[in-house]
Amino acid sequence: MPEGKEFVKAITPKSMDFSQWYVDVVLKAELADYSPVKGCIVFRPYGYTIWEFMQAELDRRFKETGHVNAYFPLFVPEGFFRKEAEHVAGFSPQVAWVTKGGDEELGERLAVRPTSETVIGVMYSKWIQSYRDLPVLINQWCNVVRWEKATRPFIRTTEFLWQEGHTCHRTEAEAEEEAQRMLEVYRSFVEDYLAIPVVPGEKSAGERFAGAVRTYTIEGLMGDGRALQCGTSHFLGQNFARSFNIQFLDEDGQLKYVWQTSWGISTRILGALIMVHGDDRGLVLPPPVAPHQIVLVPITARSGEQVLAASRQVYDRLRVRFRVKLDDRPEFSPGWKFNDWEMRGVPLRLEIGPRDLAADQVTVVRRDSGERSTVPMAGLEDSLAHLLGEVHSALYKRALAFREANTHRVSDFDHFRTIIEGPRGFIEAGWCGEESCETRIKEETGATIRCLPFGREHPEECVLCGGQARHLAYFARAY
Amino acid sequence: MPEGKEFVKAITPKSMDFSQWYVDVVLKAELADYSPVKGCIVFRPYGYTIWEFMQAELDRRFKETGHVNAYFPLFVPEGFFRKEAEHVAGFSPQVAWVTKGGDEELGERLAVRPTSETVIGVMYSKWIQSYRDLPVLINQWCNVVRWEKATRPFIRTTEFLWQEGHTCHRTEAEAEEEAQRMLEVYRSFVEDYLAIPVVPGEKSAGERFAGAVRTYTIEGLMGDGRALQCGTSHFLGQNFARSFNIQFLDEDGQLKYVWQTSWGISTRILGALIMVHGDDRGLVLPPPVAPHQIVLVPITARSGEQVLAASRQVYDRLRVRFRVKLDDRPEFSPGWKFNDWEMRGVPLRLEIGPRDLAADQVTVVRRDSGERSTVPMAGLEDSLAHLLGEVHSALYKRALAFREANTHRVSDFDHFRTIIEGPRGFIEAGWCGEESCETRIKEETGATIRCLPFGREHPEECVLCGGQARHLAYFARAY
Repeated sequence: MPEGKEFVKAITPKSMDFSQWYVDVVLKAELADYSPVKGCIVFRPYGYTIWEFMQAELDRRFKETGHVNAYFPLFVPEGFFRKEAEHVAGFSPQVAWVTKGGDEELGERLAVRPTSETVIGVMYSKWIQSYRDLPVLINQWCNVVRWEKATRPFIRTTEFLWQEGHTCHRTEAEAEEEAQRMLEVYRSFVEDYLAIPVVPGEKSAGERFAGAVRTYTIEGLMGDGRALQCGTSHFLGQNFARSFNIQFLDEDGQLKYVWQTSWGISTRILGALIMVHGDDRGLVLPPPVAPHQIVLVPITARSGEQVLAASRQVYDRLRVRFRVKLDDRPEFSPGWKFNDWEMRGVPLRLEIGPRDLAADQVTVVRRDSGERSTVPMAGLEDSLAHLLGEVHSALYKRALAFREANTHRVSDFDHFRTIIEGPRGFIEAGWCGEESCETRIKEETGATIRCLPFGREHPEECVLCGGQARHLAYFARAY
Repeated sequence: MPEGKEFVKAITPKSMDFSQWYVDVVLKAELADYSPVKGCIVFRPYGYTIWEFMQAELDRRFKETGHVNAYFPLFVPEGFFRKEAEHVAGFSPQVAWVTKGGDEELGERLAVRPTSETVIGVMYSKWIQSYRDLPVLINQWCNVVRWEKATRPFIRTTEFLWQEGHTCHRTEAEAEEEAQRMLEVYRSFVEDYLAIPVVPGEKSAGERFAGAVRTYTIEGLMGDGRALQCGTSHFLGQNFARSFNIQFLDEDGQLKYVWQTSWGISTRILGALIMVHGDDRGLVLPPPVAPHQIVLVPITARSGEQVLAASRQVYDRLRVRFRVKLDDRPEFSPGWKFNDWEMRGVPLRLEIGPRDLAADQVTVVRRDSGERSTVPMAGLEDSLAHLLGEVHSALYKRALAFREANTHRVSDFDHFRTIIEGPRGFIEAGWCGEESCETRIKEETGATIRCLPFGREHPEECVLCGGQARHLAYFARAY
């Protein structure tokens, strides 16, 4: 299959140039494309369909935990944006500004939302009067814009899609509980549904969301040893409540500020999906988010009509239960199709040829391992469901093994430096809690504190200054 | 129930001031709220949930007809926007412009998309090479911005939500068929799912989408006799294909321009839902889009505990099959709750009191007619499903009867004027096809041609000039 070989060559091997491999996969699997707008990508149908599965699953989990959806304006008047001091300082350099509407020069310019705490705060201050109005548990699915200098498809783009949850509570404890509950929703979604292992923990002060009291995060490790923040949940305390005057009359007759959280996960998770599971042949998709879970390729060199008819029968059987694609295009050879669908990450390939027909079986090839087996026609659906489950857990196990092999317990700074400049990965090390050490490590190695993982004992000494450690920190170079 | 009565008074009666009634319903039923951004509303959870049901149903119908979703950038560089001459002339006065990103003054300003034909055209010219790449059947769910001077919640807002389909075809006939197919999807969605009767037809040249060859529309009649365009589908011909150079190599070896369509339906349909079905007591929702299809109110004046326990049992039975709300708030009287849920448009109210318990029945009140009946506990689910179906078809019939009573066959212009200045509604009349007559009618009466309905015989004479009529036209004052 010469065309097939040529075809696969079009993707730069992952081991040779990870960055180029990533872009090749994004473009050639038709997940996304560059647009004529600087820093903005187009989500092509194959990529957007994956996002739709993610949205549906997350939305279900949000509603299960009592949340409802709403929609707030895209534009934020500059005055509102400036009300929370830390927040505006954090986001200002990244804001796109609308200054003209039609022929009219605007009196006050409008920020294209980089996030919606401020405009939502204005509404909450109007809607919330009494303790009976609490909690407010609202989520929004929308686009946001952050003016970025260096961009990369999905991972960092000027416009991206996300959801942002914004909740108000009567007590500090309730808000804290909500922030942690939503981090757990994210962890479970990313680990169980996307088969991506993550490290949950708290951000250091330097890495916190602008305006938050505490930021919780889940951090994944990509195939090149760099970390990617996969979702964050913020305990906002009363910072925005004070700036936007969100008060309620409590049962005791006192006027009090609400306690708030916000939390978000974005289309950058599509980047994680590619970088964690992909291989030299291209994309590898976990079955729950695969637009096609199974591709069926008739091997029609001989007895063409019979094979095609049988393939269509199998297709009709399978489509009731799976997202299955029958590739009966006459203009491409089976070999070309194998490579094409592997590049697109379809979890299982079914081949039906004359020998399969004769033996009343199909040939099944797993995308994750390349393993080839034959499966009897009788009970085919159950066998395939079982195999898809195996693919899914194998993907998780492989990614977990990779992360474990690339997580280094380090206690001196030379060793730290060697790892970051060599194999990279996560570095587990003690940290004294001082911003000066965090900053110097960042300046000297490019590694940042990804998180302070929950429930772990900390070492004795800070990896940089040797002083008393107060935390175990996960360091990495990150996207 | 004195609070109850007071409560209902808070809505201006529909017959007294339709506009104020509309705004009262939007705000008090918590469908939407004004935002601090001029011309932009907030979709509150109750209103957004209705939009979610509409989205899910439309999305299902789009996918059934072979379409896939994608996502294109929010921003359109001015140069692309200017490539189709009619298009830019039509939309320029309404565009919001981004001129600054972070601290950087932009070299070329960016339009916030008012619609996406141009940016999508750029991508299609890149993606489409061969006849094998056709048809392209892509839809996008997104926000758009049109700078409006006078706004009204849902009906006309600076930012709104919609879907826009953009398709490319090999032949003119295929594109024409697609444009009509999607109009039919809209018609069936609006009539069958939202119970809103519409008149399908073609727009006159003066009312066409900027850049289209033909625009098809479905037009509804609101409770005040004004028309509302509920969805449009455009046959674009090769206008954008030529401007954006979208060409394909056909099977015959010739390079050809594609034939295109675009079609959209927006959150303004929420306005139609309110204005077609609502009454003096507030919102009336068709069961398929009601966030709560049934509200259950325990009547707990006496034997409170028993009634509450029974209500919870009924609630647990019904929630398996319906979207049901149990309103057991102790701080409000049953009467207050009745009025509150009527105002919010819940199709059926169930009351469970001591007498109902004793008789092993529930009392059911229909929102549409106010009709009260008792239903035995045995087979309750089926009885309610049947009743919901009846409510739905009664809503459609009532709206259709209203439209028929307010559609006037007119042959002279004085009569035309009397109707537009009096009861309003649709005017069916002959039109010669000249823009001059269309314009004069608009200037003198404020009525526009809503559509030239499909498959209808036209009268002899133009209602204005008395010349040979070429069309039957539907005229109305419109939102």
